[in-house]
Amino acid sequence: MTCPPQRGPLWCRLETVKPISSHIWERAMVMKKFINDPENIVKELLEGYALAFPDKITLVGDYLVARARPKAKGKVGLVSLGGSGHEPGHIGYVGKGLLDICVPGEIFAAPGPPRCLDAIRRADRGAGVLFIVGNHASDVLTAKLTMEMAKKEDLNVKMVLNHEDIASGPREKPEERRGLVGFLPLYKVAGAAAEEGKSLNEIYKIAERFSANMCTLAVAVSPATHPSTGTTLFELGDDEMEIGMGSHGEAGLKRMKLKSADQTAEIMLQQLLDDLKVRAGEQLLVILSGAGATTLMELFIIFRRMGQVLSAKKIKIARSLIGEIITTQEQAGFQMFIGRVDEHLLGLWDAPCDSPYLTLR
Amino acid sequence: MTCPPQRGPLWCRLETVKPISSHIWERAMVMKKFINDPENIVKELLEGYALAFPDKITLVGDYLVARARPKAKGKVGLVSLGGSGHEPGHIGYVGKGLLDICVPGEIFAAPGPPRCLDAIRRADRGAGVLFIVGNHASDVLTAKLTMEMAKKEDLNVKMVLNHEDIASGPREKPEERRGLVGFLPLYKVAGAAAEEGKSLNEIYKIAERFSANMCTLAVAVSPATHPSTGTTLFELGDDEMEIGMGSHGEAGLKRMKLKSADQTAEIMLQQLLDDLKVRAGEQLLVILSGAGATTLMELFIIFRRMGQVLSAKKIKIARSLIGEIITTQEQAGFQMFIGRVDEHLLGLWDAPCDSPYLTLR
Repeated sequence: MTCPPQRGPLWCRLETVKPISSHIWERAMVMKKFINDPENIVKELLEGYALAFPDKITLVGDYLVARARPKAKGKVGLVSLGGSGHEPGHIGYVGKGLLDICVPGEIFAAPGPPRCLDAIRRADRGAGVLFIVGNHASDVLTAKLTMEMAKKEDLNVKMVLNHEDIASGPREKPEERRGLVGFLPLYKVAGAAAEEGKSLNEIYKIAERFSANMCTLAVAVSPATHPSTGTTLFELGDDEMEIGMGSHGEAGLKRMKLKSADQTAEIMLQQLLDDLKVRAGEQLLVILSGAGATTLMELFIIFRRMGQVLSAKKIKIARSLIGEIITTQEQAGFQMFIGRVDEHLLGLWDAPCDSPYLTLR
Repeated sequence: MTCPPQRGPLWCRLETVKPISSHIWERAMVMKKFINDPENIVKELLEGYALAFPDKITLVGDYLVARARPKAKGKVGLVSLGGSGHEPGHIGYVGKGLLDICVPGEIFAAPGPPRCLDAIRRADRGAGVLFIVGNHASDVLTAKLTMEMAKKEDLNVKMVLNHEDIASGPREKPEERRGLVGFLPLYKVAGAAAEEGKSLNEIYKIAERFSANMCTLAVAVSPATHPSTGTTLFELGDDEMEIGMGSHGEAGLKRMKLKSADQTAEIMLQQLLDDLKVRAGEQLLVILSGAGATTLMELFIIFRRMGQVLSAKKIKIARSLIGEIITTQEQAGFQMFIGRVDEHLLGLWDAPCDSPYLTLR
């Protein structure tokens, strides 16, 4: 393997064989993860990813994940960022009808502003860029610094936050609410609007309005280990679950004895419906995202009960998505998302998209 | 919720509230799985699944998973069966360009022949049915009984086995080889050929030929628990992995100390290349299917090394698929599949398909 000339210096550095320090390796063994040198996890996973989807995505600059076939001039660009270790979030959603470029950070860590700025420059094909950022302290710090740098360059960028975790702050204080799986519906509707040729201002308004009409609640039952450090992200009793936990083990709303699938679904859904003040006759987009070890089998059982509860309340599930949208390694648990949708948003949701981990026809 | 008249008696029984016996419930808690009564897992997961994808699949007869929009008359029908608890396998692949009907069994158990016969009757729209069966003792027993019953009814059915696990028998004894993730490429190419209007005989030949040109090897590093019984499927030391393990913990080729991702990829890939006698200049379809707890992050790292090794040997990765194709609950490990492909098979692989868990555009 030689260093392709169009790729940056980080790519080349991978070619240097580096001995694995034995204590790091011992730790990796205890984790039972298929990795090599823990320091190279992100570069190696991105190289494997690019190799797996050569028709859809490519690595540009310093490990930015970009569409293999960049959009035509005139379309608003969509850029996002996020820590690695949550695959397929966020890199899995680069493609037609979704992101133009995603900037992956190290494991569970925000990337630096220079790479984000480079992504924005590349994604700007004359119609400006929407920068979609999940509300996590380090991601937001990076994003704000990036926005300042972009302003100095007179780049036309608007930033939208997803901050829909009802466990981390009240609805009146969106700045306290963490960003969870709500990033995906934002990518989807903004991406579809961009493909339609809408202006940056129009897309920004659509995304902001949708962002204010969504909420998510997570639950965890068993922890993940950090693949670079080997640290367990949190501890939980053998018979306990925690509702409201963040994607990196941040403390949640309430630790309680394990409940059945139906009880868990009822408790979580009621909190979401109350928060969003959903009324009979309204339509929802529902997303269940498994954290890693929780199976589709379980998510279907949870979804069944959600359907029964919503049907009794005369609230319609207009669309749904169930799978591993954003994971936290081998953590067990899931995120439950609801978003209030109207015919306009449904049209954008239904528009075709084609990325490695979300394809709608 | 009332019992829909078109659904069978099993559906109605779900409406009866059944108290959960406390010892069963305690066991479920220890497992940390989101389930209700362990006896109802499969019915509940199928109901949730049908609710989640109303435009794509529907439950017919006695919990058969069928296309929501059945194919037109004249197309060869594709039917498969398989135990539940492996989601998205096999029910996730019912849809255009793939299966017409899938017959799910109880957890890790084959369904009975009467339901399979019903599926074949329903899938036969005048051009016959291809019955694709993974080589597991109970699935094959069910399939053979079904074939006898179908013969008595003069149904036009041909059966194809996938039996590509190189760990469970030598290439000369395909009857000993278990069926692993190779079912998916068989569904895909047979499904595409059926949509093209090919005859049952032609599709059977394509599937048989491809089935003889594929192989899979699995590796496990940590076990799953059976969601109904709470039993751990196998035991493995803290620093051990087992290459060649079957999807239900069946003994493998070799238990060894954990290896790095690159070493694991090299060992497994070499065995597959030797088995299939792949030569320089040939083209492969490569599939990595995570068992449950193993992350996409790790699979990308494994795939990166496969790409390097194959490139050095001048073997081309023509297409690839990486994700959770068939799982075993929260087991950690993965299946590595290679299939020899030519332009004809690639054309069938590339044909559009649309099912809940595989969509190609």
